Amino acid sequence: MTEKLDDTSRGAVLAELAATGWAHDPERDAITKRFVFRNFVEAFGFMTRSALFAEKWNHHPEWFNVYKTVDVTLTTHDAGGLSELDVKLARKMDALAE
Amino acid sequence: MTEKLDDTSRGAVLAELAATGWAHDPERDAITKRFVFRNFVEAFGFMTRSALFAEKWNHHPEWFNVYKTVDVTLTTHDAGGLSELDVKLARKMDALAE
Repeated sequence: MTEKLDDTSRGAVLAELAATGWAHDPERDAITKRFVFRNFVEAFGFMTRSALFAEKWNHHPEWFNVYKTVDVTLTTHDAGGLSELDVKLARKMDALAE
Repeated sequence: MTEKLDDTSRGAVLAELAATGWAHDPERDAITKRFVFRNFVEAFGFMTRSALFAEKWNHHPEWFNVYKTVDVTLTTHDAGGLSELDVKLARKMDALAE
């Protein structure tokens, strides 16, 4: 069971993620980001690389893809909001999108 | 340029697709279907197989994935509605999901 981010760590983490384009959805306590690539091959390649880590870490994104755009939402259902797993996956996805 | 399905072919095609679970969205003139698998590996495996055909045919789905569920929407933007390409991809996705 993964724990929800506590109030002390949350502020710094959200600020750091905001710097790379992640927005916080307070209603769901989720983070969202739109990744835009050059074409479908790059967008789906990004999804495939991300999927391998998602499965390895047993933590899966909600994502919507149309052609070169991938809209990602991360939250931890078990924890009822953001956890360290979301932060870890968000950072990994940022790295994989480069 | 792909042509929109004409009124004569459309009825039979939509009925056939409805039989395998595709719903018609008249507002967008699109077809939609929810595919549910056993887990993320199967869901993303389905997406990967579908992606190869989508890219080969240069006709890409709009799709949303959460864990074992994949919501697919097909329409042909160039044609302003459903075309034969959507029908072809819908049938392929049905086959790939089996």
